[in-house]
Amino acid sequence: MNRALVRLLQKKERELRERDIAYRITGLATRRLGWLADANGLDLSALGAGNIPATQNLKGPANVREWLREARADVLFEATSLDPHTGQPAIDHIRAALETGAQAITANKGPIVHAYEELRSLATAKGRRFLFESTVMDGAPIFSLFRESLPAVHLRGFRGILNSTTNVILSSMEEGLDFEAALRKAQEVGVAETDPSHDIDGWDAAVKVAALVTVLMGVPIRLDEIKREGIGGLSGEVVSAARAAGKPYKLLCRAQRSNEGVAASVRPEQLPLADPLAWVAGTSSVVYFETDIFPGLAITETNPGVETTAYGMLADFIRAVSE
Amino acid sequence: MNRALVRLLQKKERELRERDIAYRITGLATRRLGWLADANGLDLSALGAGNIPATQNLKGPANVREWLREARADVLFEATSLDPHTGQPAIDHIRAALETGAQAITANKGPIVHAYEELRSLATAKGRRFLFESTVMDGAPIFSLFRESLPAVHLRGFRGILNSTTNVILSSMEEGLDFEAALRKAQEVGVAETDPSHDIDGWDAAVKVAALVTVLMGVPIRLDEIKREGIGGLSGEVVSAARAAGKPYKLLCRAQRSNEGVAASVRPEQLPLADPLAWVAGTSSVVYFETDIFPGLAITETNPGVETTAYGMLADFIRAVSE
Repeated sequence: MNRALVRLLQKKERELRERDIAYRITGLATRRLGWLADANGLDLSALGAGNIPATQNLKGPANVREWLREARADVLFEATSLDPHTGQPAIDHIRAALETGAQAITANKGPIVHAYEELRSLATAKGRRFLFESTVMDGAPIFSLFRESLPAVHLRGFRGILNSTTNVILSSMEEGLDFEAALRKAQEVGVAETDPSHDIDGWDAAVKVAALVTVLMGVPIRLDEIKREGIGGLSGEVVSAARAAGKPYKLLCRAQRSNEGVAASVRPEQLPLADPLAWVAGTSSVVYFETDIFPGLAITETNPGVETTAYGMLADFIRAVSE
Repeated sequence: MNRALVRLLQKKERELRERDIAYRITGLATRRLGWLADANGLDLSALGAGNIPATQNLKGPANVREWLREARADVLFEATSLDPHTGQPAIDHIRAALETGAQAITANKGPIVHAYEELRSLATAKGRRFLFESTVMDGAPIFSLFRESLPAVHLRGFRGILNSTTNVILSSMEEGLDFEAALRKAQEVGVAETDPSHDIDGWDAAVKVAALVTVLMGVPIRLDEIKREGIGGLSGEVVSAARAAGKPYKLLCRAQRSNEGVAASVRPEQLPLADPLAWVAGTSSVVYFETDIFPGLAITETNPGVETTAYGMLADFIRAVSE
């Protein structure tokens, strides 16, 4: 995804220039390359060829702060993998960025669930932004929609399909594959990860629900407060029969405000065909918002590419440096 | 709708106060009440009871400028009815507002089609905003979505269902009513106007298409460049048979960029059930955007109320006075 972000930054150079935005990539940290930093700018094409000047390789800095300082980072793009139970190491990275005065942009939703209030307050105190548009529905505008385009609107609840791996698997099972074959197919096309349990068991979707509830409904919710059931218990026969009967299964995400707070769930549900969610197939995703003004306002994203997630980070970058 | 706006302004008083926004209604112009203005504020409850102080009634001012001056207007909410062929008198009202230094907010889409560049340039020159979120899909965020939440994205085209009167009529025809009965029913529930020809003949939808193309695609398009066909030629039998056969009719709006510019149309089309637009019924509306980043990004609004259109003006008001 970071490669996609670099490509997108290059592709959108003219649009950035029109907004008086210039950038230099001064740091890069990956499992393969290690911690690289050069405040004068890294030569990405040289890096691609494996030519890394010794001066740029920090050889495992004591901590992420050292790396941020060496890079003199104004903006951190954080894109580590999700640990749904701790939000780490993303939280430490974002905290370090904000504390050293950099804008923090993340595609990792763990920090929102495990440290939203802390990181938001820290960003405010430092006069920096903590932005995370890529965490839900790739880069489709969800958080920015409410923040920027729906002033004074109150969110009462939502229903959505937010995990593409399970949606792809269910779509394949409707076409006749059993669960194992559908999973293998999803892995082959690069949708499912080698360890797909986060998706299959509903963890990924639950973390997204928690992020939406926390940020958009203003109610911090713990993962163990979300009723969660994955799709591992569904057989190919049951799934294809349900579609044939006009009541297809979807891994449905729900949240609803009540006097007692917010009730939320992630679980397979059968939907009638008249429900627009029944038709959201494959890697597409959707969320229907119920607000005090709009009985139903939905954002649907069909067939996103790798650029879509990168775009969420690019849009956050433009926001962060335009103010 | 203006009554709905006043109610919404009152309902959202706390949210406005939290944003340090205070307001006073100093002018009101309607066919029934005439031109009323009082820079110290009008007493709306007295107006409702028909008690209008003589000093506030301008008895037909020489022009809208005189009224704006008497009211010392900082913001104009323009909500006259659409004249698809001229955009008047809304254009004159908006021009007058901007020229006298007021923010201009309109729910009338005519001015976008007939005077967008002029009014936008005028607003920029005067340091004021010309905003029109209520003109397409009631108050659902469309223009603000692209302006504020999708930086650096290029719109290639869109498909949508944007006229609720025809969509309600088609839904009734699918249930067995003939065209005339379906139209009467739509008029009885207040969806269709007494003269429904603007809707039936596709003018309303065509003006919305022109507004989206002009503003979001950056290509001014005249109404006579949009292929337009209404639903008047469809019988109840044909429409209900099409739904029964799984290929329902919708009054579909389309625009697509090409090397030659933008091709756009409004006409009844049969859609397969797998097309999410086939399921958008009654007063609901939808638009699917195709952009360079998102192959498909859709906004759907289901069952809007009268508050929804008023909300678009409220959101524009918050934008205009927050900067």
